[in-house]
Amino acid sequence: MTGLLAPAWAGTGADALVDDRALLTAMFATEVALAEAQAELGVIPESAAAAIRAAAVPEPDLAVGVRETANPVVAFVAALAAAVGPDAAEYVHRGSTSQDILDTALMLLCRAAFDRIERDLLATAESLAGHVRAHRGTPMAGRTLTQHAVPVTFGLKAATWLHGVLDAVERVRRVELPVSLGGAAGTLSAYQEYSSAEAALRLPDLVARRLGLAPQVLPWHGIRTPIADVAAALLVTTGALGKLAADVLVLSRTEIGEVTEATAPGRGVSSAMPQKHNPVFATLVATAARQLPPLAVVLFGSMAAEDERSAGAWHAEWQPLRDALRIAAGAAANAACLAASLQVSPAAMAANLQLTRGAIVSERVNAVLAPKLGKAAAKRLLAEATAEAGRTGRDLAAVLDLDLPPDVLDPAAYTGLAGPLADRALARYDVVKESR
Amino acid sequence: MTGLLAPAWAGTGADALVDDRALLTAMFATEVALAEAQAELGVIPESAAAAIRAAAVPEPDLAVGVRETANPVVAFVAALAAAVGPDAAEYVHRGSTSQDILDTALMLLCRAAFDRIERDLLATAESLAGHVRAHRGTPMAGRTLTQHAVPVTFGLKAATWLHGVLDAVERVRRVELPVSLGGAAGTLSAYQEYSSAEAALRLPDLVARRLGLAPQVLPWHGIRTPIADVAAALLVTTGALGKLAADVLVLSRTEIGEVTEATAPGRGVSSAMPQKHNPVFATLVATAARQLPPLAVVLFGSMAAEDERSAGAWHAEWQPLRDALRIAAGAAANAACLAASLQVSPAAMAANLQLTRGAIVSERVNAVLAPKLGKAAAKRLLAEATAEAGRTGRDLAAVLDLDLPPDVLDPAAYTGLAGPLADRALARYDVVKESR
Amino acid sequence: MTGLLAPAWAGTGADALVDDRALLTAMFATEVALAEAQAELGVIPESAAAAIRAAAVPEPDLAVGVRETANPVVAFVAALAAAVGPDAAEYVHRGSTSQDILDTALMLLCRAAFDRIERDLLATAESLAGHVRAHRGTPMAGRTLTQHAVPVTFGLKAATWLHGVLDAVERVRRVELPVSLGGAAGTLSAYQEYSSAEAALRLPDLVARRLGLAPQVLPWHGIRTPIADVAAALLVTTGALGKLAADVLVLSRTEIGEVTEATAPGRGVSSAMPQKHNPVFATLVATAARQLPPLAVVLFGSMAAEDERSAGAWHAEWQPLRDALRIAAGAAANAACLAASLQVSPAAMAANLQLTRGAIVSERVNAVLAPKLGKAAAKRLLAEATAEAGRTGRDLAAVLDLDLPPDVLDPAAYTGLAGPLADRALARYDVVKESR
Amino acid sequence: MTGLLAPAWAGTGADALVDDRALLTAMFATEVALAEAQAELGVIPESAAAAIRAAAVPEPDLAVGVRETANPVVAFVAALAAAVGPDAAEYVHRGSTSQDILDTALMLLCRAAFDRIERDLLATAESLAGHVRAHRGTPMAGRTLTQHAVPVTFGLKAATWLHGVLDAVERVRRVELPVSLGGAAGTLSAYQEYSSAEAALRLPDLVARRLGLAPQVLPWHGIRTPIADVAAALLVTTGALGKLAADVLVLSRTEIGEVTEATAPGRGVSSAMPQKHNPVFATLVATAARQLPPLAVVLFGSMAAEDERSAGAWHAEWQPLRDALRIAAGAAANAACLAASLQVSPAAMAANLQLTRGAIVSERVNAVLAPKLGKAAAKRLLAEATAEAGRTGRDLAAVLDLDLPPDVLDPAAYTGLAGPLADRALARYDVVKESR
Repeated sequence: MTGLLAPAWAGTGADALVDDRALLTAMFATEVALAEAQAELGVIPESAAAAIRAAAVPEPDLAVGVRETANPVVAFVAALAAAVGPDAAEYVHRGSTSQDILDTALMLLCRAAFDRIERDLLATAESLAGHVRAHRGTPMAGRTLTQHAVPVTFGLKAATWLHGVLDAVERVRRVELPVSLGGAAGTLSAYQEYSSAEAALRLPDLVARRLGLAPQVLPWHGIRTPIADVAAALLVTTGALGKLAADVLVLSRTEIGEVTEATAPGRGVSSAMPQKHNPVFATLVATAARQLPPLAVVLFGSMAAEDERSAGAWHAEWQPLRDALRIAAGAAANAACLAASLQVSPAAMAANLQLTRGAIVSERVNAVLAPKLGKAAAKRLLAEATAEAGRTGRDLAAVLDLDLPPDVLDPAAYTGLAGPLADRALARYDVVKESR
Repeated sequence: MTGLLAPAWAGTGADALVDDRALLTAMFATEVALAEAQAELGVIPESAAAAIRAAAVPEPDLAVGVRETANPVVAFVAALAAAVGPDAAEYVHRGSTSQDILDTALMLLCRAAFDRIERDLLATAESLAGHVRAHRGTPMAGRTLTQHAVPVTFGLKAATWLHGVLDAVERVRRVELPVSLGGAAGTLSAYQEYSSAEAALRLPDLVARRLGLAPQVLPWHGIRTPIADVAAALLVTTGALGKLAADVLVLSRTEIGEVTEATAPGRGVSSAMPQKHNPVFATLVATAARQLPPLAVVLFGSMAAEDERSAGAWHAEWQPLRDALRIAAGAAANAACLAASLQVSPAAMAANLQLTRGAIVSERVNAVLAPKLGKAAAKRLLAEATAEAGRTGRDLAAVLDLDLPPDVLDPAAYTGLAGPLADRALARYDVVKESR
Repeated sequence: MTGLLAPAWAGTGADALVDDRALLTAMFATEVALAEAQAELGVIPESAAAAIRAAAVPEPDLAVGVRETANPVVAFVAALAAAVGPDAAEYVHRGSTSQDILDTALMLLCRAAFDRIERDLLATAESLAGHVRAHRGTPMAGRTLTQHAVPVTFGLKAATWLHGVLDAVERVRRVELPVSLGGAAGTLSAYQEYSSAEAALRLPDLVARRLGLAPQVLPWHGIRTPIADVAAALLVTTGALGKLAADVLVLSRTEIGEVTEATAPGRGVSSAMPQKHNPVFATLVATAARQLPPLAVVLFGSMAAEDERSAGAWHAEWQPLRDALRIAAGAAANAACLAASLQVSPAAMAANLQLTRGAIVSERVNAVLAPKLGKAAAKRLLAEATAEAGRTGRDLAAVLDLDLPPDVLDPAAYTGLAGPLADRALARYDVVKESR
Repeated sequence: MTGLLAPAWAGTGADALVDDRALLTAMFATEVALAEAQAELGVIPESAAAAIRAAAVPEPDLAVGVRETANPVVAFVAALAAAVGPDAAEYVHRGSTSQDILDTALMLLCRAAFDRIERDLLATAESLAGHVRAHRGTPMAGRTLTQHAVPVTFGLKAATWLHGVLDAVERVRRVELPVSLGGAAGTLSAYQEYSSAEAALRLPDLVARRLGLAPQVLPWHGIRTPIADVAAALLVTTGALGKLAADVLVLSRTEIGEVTEATAPGRGVSSAMPQKHNPVFATLVATAARQLPPLAVVLFGSMAAEDERSAGAWHAEWQPLRDALRIAAGAAANAACLAASLQVSPAAMAANLQLTRGAIVSERVNAVLAPKLGKAAAKRLLAEATAEAGRTGRDLAAVLDLDLPPDVLDPAAYTGLAGPLADRALARYDVVKESR
């Protein structure tokens, strides 16, 4: 799988974290940890655990097995048993059920992807913090419903992106990824049958510790909150990064030109147009932000599943979970590149600020006039004046022809609390960075 | 709106928490809190704040206004200004923008809905805890992929439901619902223009405190994490409750009959069939669990929006957010009734446990035989024996004809750690209940 | 319901087509048609049909009924029976089941909404066709991945929108909306019990004819293709209109200014900024296009439902179906206004075409040079030349300094087959318009 | 990609229709057809077309290329140019743009998948028709909201499934899969530049004919109806098959046992429980039905995209389209196996019909009594009698103790028009089969 049709993550290394090979490795690690924990509890011989640990990761072509048994574990366990030799084979997968292995392995994949995502979110944050500092006082047009509204600063804009990225970091960090061990129907009964009640109750914690996963309170074959929590954190990740991408796509439009992605050989070129320099990283991140939310529907929808293990709802989780992980990890990797490569043009920002010839500060003029003329009259006057200025191409100041303090009509002088607000985002970044 | 087509929440009172009247009230409360905070800061006269506070909630037909300006606030503010008289009118909505009022009002609706949801989740949990205690030792068939697997207890099953509900309680409690105040483009500039930098920086906190909302770090017009967090908590709510409903729908099937919703006059009747007693509450909750995840796609998708205020992404949030709140609140209300009215038949459970004439404990028999015969041989022997028992209608014990300890073939004796695990859920419930 | 939070349809009249009153009217019409058809077949007295027909539409508060029985029909039928007097009451809803009435009534709502949507799509098409004709030769920048690509014409752009709208018209027209009559479990058995096999087989067609619906082949309580077909047609509708809106939102950006929505008093104003003239109709349509696809997930997902009538899947359809209808109808109404009010600025288009100082035709220059220099060398040369032109602010022609035919570097001369392609869309419009 | 986590299609051969190798082959076929058509038009030398045709499908690792240019075509074309030698290289991809090649190649993948889906749907229909014929008169319980309702026949149940499958066949057949050729921004300008207006206008049809695709009216880079149509057909496919699977999962429950999937070595086994015989094909199909609708959200949502080619919306289509194709194709393959392997137990059906001891025909008794007692009194009497029968375990007949014709209480005699309705489905099948 080269990701030919997957611009959301192709070439980012995200796929290797969750691909079939990664899954087989994680399933193997789970069986090893289970055997080791059972050896520690005296349930199986230490030699059996050693033999299992020493085996190579089996890599059968599992497609047929998946179809025959609706999950990859049955065939995997058979291959593993064959690989460890007849003596240890007796102890492979002891007391376990397919879902124990698969759920736990998927949590390991989540762990790997989350680590990568957190790293790349922090790299993104670092670049964005640089933009906040560099452009704390760079005025630009604020835009609402596509139209110039009032001035903002690029520092505040970047602070907004940074704040969203920090939200994502915190949500990714907060997710608990528990081991999943329940046995055939969540009673741990076969684990107990092969050992004792006490040993079976301790077993999940021992396996969790070995794998670096959180403990479980109850077996969660039928309580899918861990999957929902993963989904929610990934959604905030692509949502926050998608906001960054959406803004970059607007600001780098040919007519706006306030930011651009740095050029590099081959990047952003077109098969048809020699002049083209496309905003590639922003496009890749925007792609991810579009693809993730629908995938999460499957994950949230599968919470409402019948029985101790459902027929379809559980199975429907796996591929969307993998896809969600690699899409979010791809987005984080691409966003880090985007943030690092973002080039800012204060000159274009300054030029665009003048485009409306003063109308962009009509809110401020209104605030000055309202106490004198009354709120309604002031707003009406300004609506008319800006319309006339627009029609005639004259400056708002000239149309108004009022005795106003000079900076009232200066867009650069009406950026409100953009500075102090940007500082808050930087302060939060320091806290989040330190608390790693 | 009677909810004629909305079984997910009709008749639960959920709609009144978020309907148009509730929204207008919340928008009004926001404008009042803004005026009061500005009066406290000395920005507007106390008399103006008093006049605004004393006004009746305006209730114009806002549909036309919504269409003209793409949001209900412009027309609402005009109506409010008309209602407070010309003097105070000058101070209505001072420095504010539509999104400030609407976002904040929506957070107030979330607050009301979350309080109701938490209450009803705890009521559900209380009933479920009763089932856990009453049926800690009631054996029943565990089912996976629709087939009898190994025995469980109804106590553990109810504990699983309880655990999911507690997950939902914790996630609902955890969500921060912040005030939203940014002014036209998130710089607080007009608030500042009418007062001072210091006053404008303090304003959001003062408004938040008055409304019982959390403070904001940055204006979040363009950082929609609060909406995503709300969505995630609601999804866990309907997911956990949907799991309960899905199981009840299975267990109350005519052929299974292990649980039923208590009868009440008129409830669950059919327009065609006099004998019908439908599982109504479970159906209503299942409906909610199907409807919510797709709605959340809009909310998560709107995170990736361009500009200081987007053209469409923000607007697309409102109705799905309202729908999600009333669907989740309806689900919680109906789940509380479902849990309270659930009648359990240990007799049916016991009868069904015998349906497979012993095959339901073949895992245990396997665990007994494997050390003697080897794992593969034991499994093969049992696969053949259970198949023969199924074909011939004989008991597995008779087909096997082995000298096994008597309770090895007793389903009621193979419930593993169902008891201690159920206790864990009860212990967690005690903690969650106390931490309210 | 004023649609306070529903900019997708507020104020368009779409809600009245599908609101609770419309539904009650449609349920009543269904019961009347059923009674009349049964009278025609001699199954019930003509006087009973007449009494039912003469009744007022009952309007009980059905919320409680919906919650008690999980559908509004049971309480509705009770109210109708009470309204028609004791004699006719015996014949109300004879042989029928709730789903027969509700499904059929929903199809009547679809019929009304589809008629409105088709009308408004054709109005939209008419306006767009006007733009195609008026601007067949108006050159403008074509944009891909946000960057100027090669020139197009506004006529072709409008033709693209028109083509999409015609796709929607055809898909809306193609949907069959069948009557739904099956009795309790789809065998028509009670209808037969009260009459005969022959009469029961004829009954659905007679009811369908009375209601202007398509006949059914089989009862479709459990075969939800008609709902899926409705959803698909609505999705193409908001998708095609959403494309129009997305382009208008870009083209009306302050920096681009190539199109604007015509101003009207009160339309597009802001609560904060006197100068604001927001693209309101485009925003409203964009909102609709974001909201519809997720709703359809519920509708498509409910196809895979168990039993002769499912517990939750069927119930989950109703509200999303209504929402989808009013969102699509609202989008069509707003798109008709958008298309009619769209003002085009050939001057801004011409100015923007010059922004890249020639780079926008580098594909053409490449085509001229490639045969001479070789493809790769030509592309490399042009990539360098356009980059240099961008850096230095010089014209591409000056940088290249080659002896090229003059119109090779004229953007207005490189619009390819935009004209003939636009004509094709107009020709298709004529066919679609005529086939109404 | 072995489909380790993709039970919806693993092992069905669906993946090979759309995997990276299939895509590269389709992209190559598109470039070949383009070259051949241009040679036919005299635009490029026949020898160049021959050299391109003779090349091996290039298989570079395109992941890096995808990330650099946000699509796989740029790197693919470079590899192809390198493969054909310097002379022909000049003519590769002449006048074309990445989207032309990728869209067209994706349509070829749709073509291949649709052919497979139609074949497997027809195979499914053939098996289902066999069940309809074999069980036209086999009575069974009809179930609504999980409860026994009135009797149906298995023949009608299978006819319902068949009807849904035929709906899917017709929708799959109806979709037009057009070639996509527009050049850089949809004007065909570079195609024209290298030839003439006339040649460029004819080109798309020539390419379409070579590839077995439908012609295009307009270039559809920005009019995504073809993708929406594909999505809609796939949704009806998995919806109809999902209905079949949902019913099989219920009917094969341990307590119901009316149908089972035929056993085969290794199929449906569990890693833990030797007795397990899981309904595997039904589970796989149910998985597909859960996964497809959310994927389609991306496809429908991408219709509303800005510009001549959007930055993200287009890119977001590719992977969900591929996933949707292989999920639907996998579902069709698995459904064909499911239908073919379905074993029916009339004995279990008969036994379950007696479970409610007569209450299942209370609708009929009601119809008999209503004319005598009045509708309301009859319904009340029967509600009480069935409740008493349920409580006491007595037969309804005994509780009622009325002089009723004997077959009024015989479930097998109250199957309404199940037979003639089943015949209609068979008749429709004959028509659909013939019209292939």
